[in-house]
Amino acid sequence: MRNYPYPLLNPPSFRWNAPKDVQEPKVHEWIQTLDVKEGETVDWSHFDVAILGVPLSRSSISASAASENPDAIRRAWKYFTTYNMEEDVDLTALKVVDLGDVRQHVTDIPACHRHIQEAMVAMRTHHPHTLPLVIGGDHSITAMLVKGWKEAHPDERIGILQLDTHFDLRSLEDNGPSNGTPIRNLIESGTIRGEDVYNIGLHGFFNAKSLKVYADEVGVHYVTLKEARKKGVAQVVQDALQQLSQKVDTIYLTVDMDVLDISVGPGAPAATPGGMRTDELFEAVLLAGACPKVKAMDLVCLDPYRDVEQATVKAGVHVMLSFLTGLVKRKNA
Amino acid sequence: MRNYPYPLLNPPSFRWNAPKDVQEPKVHEWIQTLDVKEGETVDWSHFDVAILGVPLSRSSISASAASENPDAIRRAWKYFTTYNMEEDVDLTALKVVDLGDVRQHVTDIPACHRHIQEAMVAMRTHHPHTLPLVIGGDHSITAMLVKGWKEAHPDERIGILQLDTHFDLRSLEDNGPSNGTPIRNLIESGTIRGEDVYNIGLHGFFNAKSLKVYADEVGVHYVTLKEARKKGVAQVVQDALQQLSQKVDTIYLTVDMDVLDISVGPGAPAATPGGMRTDELFEAVLLAGACPKVKAMDLVCLDPYRDVEQATVKAGVHVMLSFLTGLVKRKNA
Amino acid sequence: MRNYPYPLLNPPSFRWNAPKDVQEPKVHEWIQTLDVKEGETVDWSHFDVAILGVPLSRSSISASAASENPDAIRRAWKYFTTYNMEEDVDLTALKVVDLGDVRQHVTDIPACHRHIQEAMVAMRTHHPHTLPLVIGGDHSITAMLVKGWKEAHPDERIGILQLDTHFDLRSLEDNGPSNGTPIRNLIESGTIRGEDVYNIGLHGFFNAKSLKVYADEVGVHYVTLKEARKKGVAQVVQDALQQLSQKVDTIYLTVDMDVLDISVGPGAPAATPGGMRTDELFEAVLLAGACPKVKAMDLVCLDPYRDVEQATVKAGVHVMLSFLTGLVKRKNA
Amino acid sequence: MRNYPYPLLNPPSFRWNAPKDVQEPKVHEWIQTLDVKEGETVDWSHFDVAILGVPLSRSSISASAASENPDAIRRAWKYFTTYNMEEDVDLTALKVVDLGDVRQHVTDIPACHRHIQEAMVAMRTHHPHTLPLVIGGDHSITAMLVKGWKEAHPDERIGILQLDTHFDLRSLEDNGPSNGTPIRNLIESGTIRGEDVYNIGLHGFFNAKSLKVYADEVGVHYVTLKEARKKGVAQVVQDALQQLSQKVDTIYLTVDMDVLDISVGPGAPAATPGGMRTDELFEAVLLAGACPKVKAMDLVCLDPYRDVEQATVKAGVHVMLSFLTGLVKRKNA
Amino acid sequence: MRNYPYPLLNPPSFRWNAPKDVQEPKVHEWIQTLDVKEGETVDWSHFDVAILGVPLSRSSISASAASENPDAIRRAWKYFTTYNMEEDVDLTALKVVDLGDVRQHVTDIPACHRHIQEAMVAMRTHHPHTLPLVIGGDHSITAMLVKGWKEAHPDERIGILQLDTHFDLRSLEDNGPSNGTPIRNLIESGTIRGEDVYNIGLHGFFNAKSLKVYADEVGVHYVTLKEARKKGVAQVVQDALQQLSQKVDTIYLTVDMDVLDISVGPGAPAATPGGMRTDELFEAVLLAGACPKVKAMDLVCLDPYRDVEQATVKAGVHVMLSFLTGLVKRKNA
Amino acid sequence: MRNYPYPLLNPPSFRWNAPKDVQEPKVHEWIQTLDVKEGETVDWSHFDVAILGVPLSRSSISASAASENPDAIRRAWKYFTTYNMEEDVDLTALKVVDLGDVRQHVTDIPACHRHIQEAMVAMRTHHPHTLPLVIGGDHSITAMLVKGWKEAHPDERIGILQLDTHFDLRSLEDNGPSNGTPIRNLIESGTIRGEDVYNIGLHGFFNAKSLKVYADEVGVHYVTLKEARKKGVAQVVQDALQQLSQKVDTIYLTVDMDVLDISVGPGAPAATPGGMRTDELFEAVLLAGACPKVKAMDLVCLDPYRDVEQATVKAGVHVMLSFLTGLVKRKNA
Repeated sequence: MRNYPYPLLNPPSFRWNAPKDVQEPKVHEWIQTLDVKEGETVDWSHFDVAILGVPLSRSSISASAASENPDAIRRAWKYFTTYNMEEDVDLTALKVVDLGDVRQHVTDIPACHRHIQEAMVAMRTHHPHTLPLVIGGDHSITAMLVKGWKEAHPDERIGILQLDTHFDLRSLEDNGPSNGTPIRNLIESGTIRGEDVYNIGLHGFFNAKSLKVYADEVGVHYVTLKEARKKGVAQVVQDALQQLSQKVDTIYLTVDMDVLDISVGPGAPAATPGGMRTDELFEAVLLAGACPKVKAMDLVCLDPYRDVEQATVKAGVHVMLSFLTGLVKRKNA
Repeated sequence: MRNYPYPLLNPPSFRWNAPKDVQEPKVHEWIQTLDVKEGETVDWSHFDVAILGVPLSRSSISASAASENPDAIRRAWKYFTTYNMEEDVDLTALKVVDLGDVRQHVTDIPACHRHIQEAMVAMRTHHPHTLPLVIGGDHSITAMLVKGWKEAHPDERIGILQLDTHFDLRSLEDNGPSNGTPIRNLIESGTIRGEDVYNIGLHGFFNAKSLKVYADEVGVHYVTLKEARKKGVAQVVQDALQQLSQKVDTIYLTVDMDVLDISVGPGAPAATPGGMRTDELFEAVLLAGACPKVKAMDLVCLDPYRDVEQATVKAGVHVMLSFLTGLVKRKNA
Repeated sequence: MRNYPYPLLNPPSFRWNAPKDVQEPKVHEWIQTLDVKEGETVDWSHFDVAILGVPLSRSSISASAASENPDAIRRAWKYFTTYNMEEDVDLTALKVVDLGDVRQHVTDIPACHRHIQEAMVAMRTHHPHTLPLVIGGDHSITAMLVKGWKEAHPDERIGILQLDTHFDLRSLEDNGPSNGTPIRNLIESGTIRGEDVYNIGLHGFFNAKSLKVYADEVGVHYVTLKEARKKGVAQVVQDALQQLSQKVDTIYLTVDMDVLDISVGPGAPAATPGGMRTDELFEAVLLAGACPKVKAMDLVCLDPYRDVEQATVKAGVHVMLSFLTGLVKRKNA
Repeated sequence: MRNYPYPLLNPPSFRWNAPKDVQEPKVHEWIQTLDVKEGETVDWSHFDVAILGVPLSRSSISASAASENPDAIRRAWKYFTTYNMEEDVDLTALKVVDLGDVRQHVTDIPACHRHIQEAMVAMRTHHPHTLPLVIGGDHSITAMLVKGWKEAHPDERIGILQLDTHFDLRSLEDNGPSNGTPIRNLIESGTIRGEDVYNIGLHGFFNAKSLKVYADEVGVHYVTLKEARKKGVAQVVQDALQQLSQKVDTIYLTVDMDVLDISVGPGAPAATPGGMRTDELFEAVLLAGACPKVKAMDLVCLDPYRDVEQATVKAGVHVMLSFLTGLVKRKNA
Repeated sequence: MRNYPYPLLNPPSFRWNAPKDVQEPKVHEWIQTLDVKEGETVDWSHFDVAILGVPLSRSSISASAASENPDAIRRAWKYFTTYNMEEDVDLTALKVVDLGDVRQHVTDIPACHRHIQEAMVAMRTHHPHTLPLVIGGDHSITAMLVKGWKEAHPDERIGILQLDTHFDLRSLEDNGPSNGTPIRNLIESGTIRGEDVYNIGLHGFFNAKSLKVYADEVGVHYVTLKEARKKGVAQVVQDALQQLSQKVDTIYLTVDMDVLDISVGPGAPAATPGGMRTDELFEAVLLAGACPKVKAMDLVCLDPYRDVEQATVKAGVHVMLSFLTGLVKRKNA
Repeated sequence: MRNYPYPLLNPPSFRWNAPKDVQEPKVHEWIQTLDVKEGETVDWSHFDVAILGVPLSRSSISASAASENPDAIRRAWKYFTTYNMEEDVDLTALKVVDLGDVRQHVTDIPACHRHIQEAMVAMRTHHPHTLPLVIGGDHSITAMLVKGWKEAHPDERIGILQLDTHFDLRSLEDNGPSNGTPIRNLIESGTIRGEDVYNIGLHGFFNAKSLKVYADEVGVHYVTLKEARKKGVAQVVQDALQQLSQKVDTIYLTVDMDVLDISVGPGAPAATPGGMRTDELFEAVLLAGACPKVKAMDLVCLDPYRDVEQATVKAGVHVMLSFLTGLVKRKNA
């Protein structure tokens, strides 16, 4: 294996090699990977954004191949140009590096979780000015990533903007830090305060009443999809970002792809009828990208083995690129 | 086979046996099945709602495995909690029993139809206070179910709220009581009056002009999807419920899943582009559930063999649970 | 092979033969095919519309079986009646003939393109009063069809209403007249002026910035989907039709099915999340059909091998029938 | 609808119209359809074989779209030439006419069954020298077809060569003449004798022991697949044909496509692992085709909606053509 | 949750309830489940065979939903009768109980593995005369099950008959007791001797050379598929059983479904072209079932989410029933 | 784009980058790619085999995405180790380089064909000792590749071993050098003699009789699958290799994946029931690999978009690796 700057990371499993299309620069030609020789060091100052894959889905309550998502997302980059037509924004204004994937263990899930936390600490230590954009994996990883951030920045108050069908507030007692628990994990561990969580997109019959009671007790803010649509999802997201910006140092955006309606997100194992449309989601993450306090994001619970005509994987790439569009707007603002 | 209180019914083909999830009560743990020993009798007074499967789709004009739908719906219950997040309604306020399926014959469709009618008569006789919630099967069953209701309650004036892509007003002359004919069957048999039918959701190129002429002649009310969206589907449904409530004793809600757009209802054999969205349908049946005059419902024409990632079956469960959410609201009102 | 009036055409590969359904006349019973005996001539004066299949997709940049689309569309006609419920329009007011398919060559793409152009010239020569409705094939065919129109009507100023995710303004230098180039091909060949192109539906990250710069240079009009939805897609289409009607003699409507969201157009190889809804597209083409200056249309880039439950093929038929609905309205206006 | 010589038949729903490929004559160009004008009569003396579609699968125990099979088979003809490479036999030595489909009723299965029987009687009456090749439909049709033969030829002793996973000896008492009953139906009605049935291909766990007991009682001959492979399936088929030829006047070949292994017959709803290979089946029917006493065949229980990459439909066409190859060999012998 | 005799087991998630088909007894009507009331005890002496589900696949190297297999197998029982046609064996000669599933933990894989081992110990303690038939899950469970057997019977010498594409001899050092390691785990832990392992079915390019070297070092016996076919797979299996019977007390049969060719086992994530046919596998396990020393079996690595038309799940049921057929033969011998 | 030694080639579109698995070396870790810096030259003496992708399928008669096959094959390498278990052969004895893909043009098929021929000439010129292993693409490329060989080695007599369902002897007159014509193209151009073509695998109804007549006229040798199985496919291949070795200088092996049965090769667009098994094909190419006169091979007509669970792509990799296994045996012999 090649020399690689991070002990806990593997480089991306493949590198794009295609001749550049001068007429149409594509996302896979623009995002860089590292090719570090023995004894060389990386000049991180170039990079605005660091992409990190987290191929873990053994910690998912139901069977999931979300572990295959980081590579599925990378393979789909070639279908996208770097130019956002609707916003007239060219993403090449940003320098983005793909760090590869956090190393995982087959049978030791706690070790997987430790590696994820340590990877975030390492990123915050080695190149704190790059924004981490994490491609999961299942939702359990969010707890580890935010704990890593907190470990690196113990004095920061961290808020969460969560776009999700679920609260993710299940108790850790029965089944440990699974993908049903990350927000509760963060609250109970004192990493974040309940009042600093804003969940937008809850709908249907996919949360127990007890979780809603718990959410109320710890002060989690939430807006169901039906409510959100009365004002417009974009407006509700904007309000949440403003409220969070006033009280926290860092907003962490977490996008559970199961927030999407099953017709547009068939590859999210828990997606259901009655969920969010892609245009609503793309606008929401664009707004988050444009908000100065948003300093990290993740995208989780996308199982490419279940996808239909790559619709969900393409939606995942679009989410990532919409967020980066917001980031360019933030820089230009 | 176990002793079973109804001569024409089979018990559900399987019973859920899973350990209850205390944190997250699921629909399949909440809906009860009967386990009646020889000589025992059932105390029906417990039950607010009785679910009845009607696994008949031989009477469908085009090939359909809608006969597999009752079991597909039952198997999908486990993906849903009993708590409606958007309405803050807990369905456990209702007692619901799954009666199983009406017995069908392989080659004698008239016998199948008789059994269905008799099952409705039996339900209305043995436990008239329970609301029948019927899972088809193809749309031909609606004629039999409403005739059964009329047989049990000959003095009642019955209205129909129909959510459908089609009129279902074809003549019975050519092909008998198929799934293209139930509303005409009910009108021509004198079971209902044309003016007491409200059809919402007609669209596209899926009805002959002659059927529209017939609908006008017999006074059927209808609002196409395009028209309905001008006011909002919910408002149009509300208006229909109010008009029906003023003139009939009982409103029977029939939901043909082919009213859904093909992208959200791929498992409805006749679903087409340009149909209803799931959020529109869920809201419509919730309003019907909340309306005191609505005393029975059915859900038909869902073929789980054609489904994609279970999207349509899950939509079917959601329709059923949205209706029950309305019922809780009705009780609480 | 039977005698056929056009040297460059094959008759449709099959003819419908089903007994007519008197109750429900279907589209495949209404559209006529020719059965010309040796020495007979066709009386073209009967026909308002001529359907032409163009089974060419070798000229597509990415692999596509859009060549199979004309027959897929024909086979799906039987799922549609001739009656538009929402508009109360009966299409049998029009006489429509299916001319069959332009003959294609397996390895000589320039010959294929010549045949397509010549077929349009022949149609304009032999029966200039019939409106050509062309079923592709990939988008490269649009350049040939419009050139054919121009060859037949050299003095006409032709405008283009394009519903598309892409500009289709790539340079022809690298890869010839592929499906990424038709609009540039028409502009650079002097067939049309840039200012007479109106593109509605561009969205996401699917066009290079350089193409937008080129579009601006040559004066192409475009409205992204996000912008269009602010006014309503229908209004934006209406505005474009009005502006075009004031300056051109003929408006040619070209519908690239990849303008649709991938959830409703999975069979369009380049469809993506964030695209147009079918109700928006159907309304857009209906408006175009009703506009007196619109004298031809094509529908391209639909690959039935990739379709899911025939959703995209059915959407394609619906587009064609919505356009014809507009044509009836135009006649009746 | 066109004038058609048979009162109970519809013409094939479509006719092939493609230009003939001189280099490669295809099956769909070779099989003829009738185009009879008012007052004309058909000269049946031309035809060696008459293809008859029987689109009935409502009588199937489990949900089946085998009703769609006749048209699926017809559409797949174009993938096949008329030349059997392995036997050096050109099928154009035979004249084959596609008569179309027996008319079916949507809700009256007994009427469907009567029509099927009457269609066979009509064929035997109008053109007794043509060999009927019937494309089902489910297996219930075999009983009707053989009864029709018997009605037309009351003095003939009829034997059955059945290639099937099942006995099809279920009692008619419970569910009438379904697809589980045809052989019992024929035996109990006195149409055939048990000893004149030869079933080859039974395997696995798909028959009740009681049916085996019944088979033994009535003298049905059967060879399981495991046994048959010891001698070779071809040899066992040859033996059965010889034994039957010595005692009956007519051998009727019935091929239930579920005899195939599920990997090669995924579109046969009851296909299972452990079934026959296609090369075994093709050889078996070729031998039957070559046997002078075989005077009719059917092919049943193929549901094209469940097929994978058309493998089963193509296998169905291959079965039909292998049989016809045998027929040419018989003529040439 | 109901009272259940085993602390580490959940009852089967559902119980079949269908009316018994007197003509055709089916597997799901024959296999019993327990319904134990508080204070009651189970009379285990009735049961010849106990089925145990092990829904664990988090320990799989590649993403797998083999955890869903026990329920998938149970649901498919209804497609099978209890009568083996080819062997003339009726399985109802055996009493079989479905114990349900070993409880699993979401994030603690070592705990899952402990539960599995303890479940085997409990079975050997409470009802040592019943033969355990285990439905996995991934192949890591075999190590735990055999260790449990050894813990209950410390003096027994245990042999393994393994039908597999892989050695499963990977080192545990890197990734713990994953599904690539069970045989090495058993050898290195001293549970079995290398020389007591007989692996039949290895083929292609799916094992590292180093594993072959290790196998030779520890004396594992193996026959590749190509070699096995020279003598016949059945003969090679018979030879292995005889050799094992002479030296061990107990033979444990483990069937990794990826031994099957991908065309007949598409639902085995590691199935490949060039694997075993189903008829070879069914015969192999039948022979094992008939061998007196074979006292337990498992069936692993079947992911029903990847299956095509249920071919692999049905093959899994067939494997289980073929083994039981052998068991009846053993009893009758 | 990087500097690349061949003017007509693109490097592989991606390079594998994964950490090497020390326990299990995989094919993608073993096959090398070039990373040539400006001014550097490649030392070709290292390489025994050069892999060349030819992503052309526009020249296919029926719609095909075989152009996507080279990359699909590359992505699937990771599922295979370098060790052939059945032959005890380790492929790492060979040095293999992946040269990347021949550059293609979107609309100029003759230019594509020229590039392919020139690429072969370049390979024969720059490193004549490396064996070309070509991954197509459709079968039209074989004519160009063999012509390139002939151009580089004008004095050599070249023979063809063709494993195919078809003759590929169609006339070039109608449709040019399509995938139905390569062998005729080579014969008519004088590149090879008819008598030096050995075609094994022809079966069913997939060749016109006229092609058989032509084959006989020009002396093509062929053995149908049925005939071949009488001796064994391996023996027939061995005989062909021996005969060819006695008369030609170079044997070119061409494998059309449609020779496979559709159940094992669903991704070959023209695969049909009744074709070759994978074990037969793998053995055949292994024998060819071991034959000293075989100096090049190609693998064509595999469309990964149509594949089912990657069965055909995996079979394609297996074909390639089986051939290389033969090559190692040849070296060791």
